[in-house]
Amino acid sequence: MAMTLKEIAHALVDGCKTGKEAENLDALYAPDAVSVEAMAMAPGGSPETHGIDGIKGKHAWWESAFEFLGGSIEGPYLHGADRFAVVFKVQTRNRETGAVDAMEEVGVYHVKDGKIVREEFFYTM
Amino acid sequence: MAMTLKEIAHALVDGCKTGKEAENLDALYAPDAVSVEAMAMAPGGSPETHGIDGIKGKHAWWESAFEFLGGSIEGPYLHGADRFAVVFKVQTRNRETGAVDAMEEVGVYHVKDGKIVREEFFYTM
Repeated sequence: MAMTLKEIAHALVDGCKTGKEAENLDALYAPDAVSVEAMAMAPGGSPETHGIDGIKGKHAWWESAFEFLGGSIEGPYLHGADRFAVVFKVQTRNRETGAVDAMEEVGVYHVKDGKIVREEFFYTM
Repeated sequence: MAMTLKEIAHALVDGCKTGKEAENLDALYAPDAVSVEAMAMAPGGSPETHGIDGIKGKHAWWESAFEFLGGSIEGPYLHGADRFAVVFKVQTRNRETGAVDAMEEVGVYHVKDGKIVREEFFYTM
């Protein structure tokens, strides 16, 4: 039976808290899920990544670029039958420059047929 | 000239912090703006309120039902060309029952032609 919105939302948050993000990509996401950044990461680029392999690539890039120092996760916050939001507050160290930074973002997740089909990130700028 | 997404987002947050919510409804919202709760407030009801007069009515109802004790507002968090999110953490007293409660919600705002045309609230449940 398909997971409910609430089950998916709590599984995603629990996974982030226990270091199971990679397992969650396989368990909770649709193969053709789309990930949308707040803006394009490069001039002329697209803010959208299509497909679970691309989303895994984003996670791998992030982990190669940043060391996770600590942080908090708030939520999930539910909306209607098919969406939830999560607030991430993360302290990171840039592996290349050593710069320590605090990042805050809101993720909005869209669920269809028991899988996450779209994630959208909102940043402070 | 129409306000930019960033200007509107900061004006909304600043208004919430300084008690200018009512002025902001007139200044920042489109006349036909839609407000969407996380779920219908009554069985069989709709979670949607259409039009600025209805949204003003929601605010008036909230103020008649709850006393604002304190809280914090985080954001705005921007996404793309037309959306922003705000995190509200509010302590309230129910004016009828006296019950003190903590409410957390995420608001996602859609902007078009320099006005807020849709707001969607996400709750912890």
